[in-house]
Amino acid sequence: MSLALGIDLGGTNTKLALVDRSHGVLVQQSIPTRAETGPGAVVMALAQTAEGLLTQARVDRAAVQGIGLATPGPLDLGAGKITRAANLPGWQDGPVRDMLAECVGLPVVLENDANAAAYGEYVAGGGVGCEHLVVLTLGTGVGSGVIVNGEILHGHFDNAGELGHMIVVVDGLPCPCGQRGCLERYSSADAIVRRVREGHKGSRGREIEGSREWTAPDIAHAASQQDPVCARIWDEACKYLAVACVNIQHAYNPQRILLAGGLSLAGDLLLEPVRRHLKAQSWSLHTDLPEVAPATLGSDAGVIGAAALAFAPAE
Amino acid sequence: MSLALGIDLGGTNTKLALVDRSHGVLVQQSIPTRAETGPGAVVMALAQTAEGLLTQARVDRAAVQGIGLATPGPLDLGAGKITRAANLPGWQDGPVRDMLAECVGLPVVLENDANAAAYGEYVAGGGVGCEHLVVLTLGTGVGSGVIVNGEILHGHFDNAGELGHMIVVVDGLPCPCGQRGCLERYSSADAIVRRVREGHKGSRGREIEGSREWTAPDIAHAASQQDPVCARIWDEACKYLAVACVNIQHAYNPQRILLAGGLSLAGDLLLEPVRRHLKAQSWSLHTDLPEVAPATLGSDAGVIGAAALAFAPAE
Repeated sequence: MSLALGIDLGGTNTKLALVDRSHGVLVQQSIPTRAETGPGAVVMALAQTAEGLLTQARVDRAAVQGIGLATPGPLDLGAGKITRAANLPGWQDGPVRDMLAECVGLPVVLENDANAAAYGEYVAGGGVGCEHLVVLTLGTGVGSGVIVNGEILHGHFDNAGELGHMIVVVDGLPCPCGQRGCLERYSSADAIVRRVREGHKGSRGREIEGSREWTAPDIAHAASQQDPVCARIWDEACKYLAVACVNIQHAYNPQRILLAGGLSLAGDLLLEPVRRHLKAQSWSLHTDLPEVAPATLGSDAGVIGAAALAFAPAE
Repeated sequence: MSLALGIDLGGTNTKLALVDRSHGVLVQQSIPTRAETGPGAVVMALAQTAEGLLTQARVDRAAVQGIGLATPGPLDLGAGKITRAANLPGWQDGPVRDMLAECVGLPVVLENDANAAAYGEYVAGGGVGCEHLVVLTLGTGVGSGVIVNGEILHGHFDNAGELGHMIVVVDGLPCPCGQRGCLERYSSADAIVRRVREGHKGSRGREIEGSREWTAPDIAHAASQQDPVCARIWDEACKYLAVACVNIQHAYNPQRILLAGGLSLAGDLLLEPVRRHLKAQSWSLHTDLPEVAPATLGSDAGVIGAAALAFAPAE
């Protein structure tokens, strides 16, 4: 048996999985990242957890071809470093790839987490067969990964496909990134919750009960029940997502755009209005409109994609 | 000597050039396309002109490796066809690639004209050394070509990099393409001239003398002389171009974005405000801002790029 270890390292939790060449997950485990202990200690914890997974799966260490390590970006892929690490304080410019490789004694491929998730959907999820694919992960922000000719698009600075920061409203809402009007200020789960909270404050002079704890799918449901603030903000989120899809169409001409992340749990309450706005806004010069569909791997996309990348060099 | 023939077929004129492997143009000629005579007659005329160029350059026919044919898109590259041909009435779905190959007896590579021009700038112009490059051609509309890892990005539907139809203003000015708020409704040479004409009508109740004949560089100059309508519309054009550059940055992460076409003749009157708006609107999360620079090959970019593509398969 030939296996790879996929690791999806997040600011809070990290998932590890042993994955076979058919992209099947044999065993997996989530651990707290404890980023504040520093990259050295975290790498040690990852190595220990990996050993535990091997024991649990009763596979020989020699069966593991390599490790795919997905982390928040931006990254310097050539140097195997995280160049900025908003969620990983103190990790900046730490050579995590080589640290992990040395600690575990296996080759490590480093990849941006959104890219790894997109690659996972490409090899084993909603994007199988789509050599040109874009995955938008709608959660705290809007993450994205772009597959071009069956490979992850990195660009010159290793940071291609940051579509959450596509400007959809010139001079729009300020974004902590420094820009204004970024897609993720309108169409991320967090943005929708924040805008509904502010909208309810604005329209009624006080917050409606419990609105602080609302999730984006709650809002989708309230919108479908004609709550006017929720309906307006949900519809705007879907409309800007559709604008992003038009721009993605013209940028990459993908066969399919997958929607993933917390917001996508709203299912048809998300897909239907996005598709409707997309149809209303799209051009008539060509029949090159991509299909908009749900991602299918959920939170496993990252480890599956990362593991697949670890196999790739050997193939 | 090893040569290729580059052809840049336009709705009005067609340019042909014999180009060597170092991308040097030996001889070139422009002829009226006479598209209305149909693809068969045009292909015959191209073949005759090509023979004339060979005679003129005193090179043997055997030295020509192949032909690169650049035409308006959208194209079906697999079938070698123009699928829609707004500027070439009656050409739709005609197998131009194979017709030309049969008529001339040489292999023909078909490519979208904006892509061929971008490839020309990549191999021999302002984008040499940039494996990730975007070229925006600002003329009647906004054409674009995208180089990813040193190759033209085509996408699933062969129509990637149609950045003139990136939506920069949601619910903005209607575009004949069927969308609203496309970049080319604000930042093409034609759009600027049209908007200035309408702006002058609006602000003064009548057109200013001669404004119908203004070119975009005239408007750039008038804007620099503080004509209020020209200044506002020129600045908006530059601002939306900067927004497009931000979105291009996040989409492809190119090293450089080149500005070409009629509008680029304005030189620093274009580059300076675009760079200023770009700086004002760009993010602080990463130092991945592409350089914005002028294209350098002018109207030769298409034939040089097309010829380079004809060499590519043999290399």
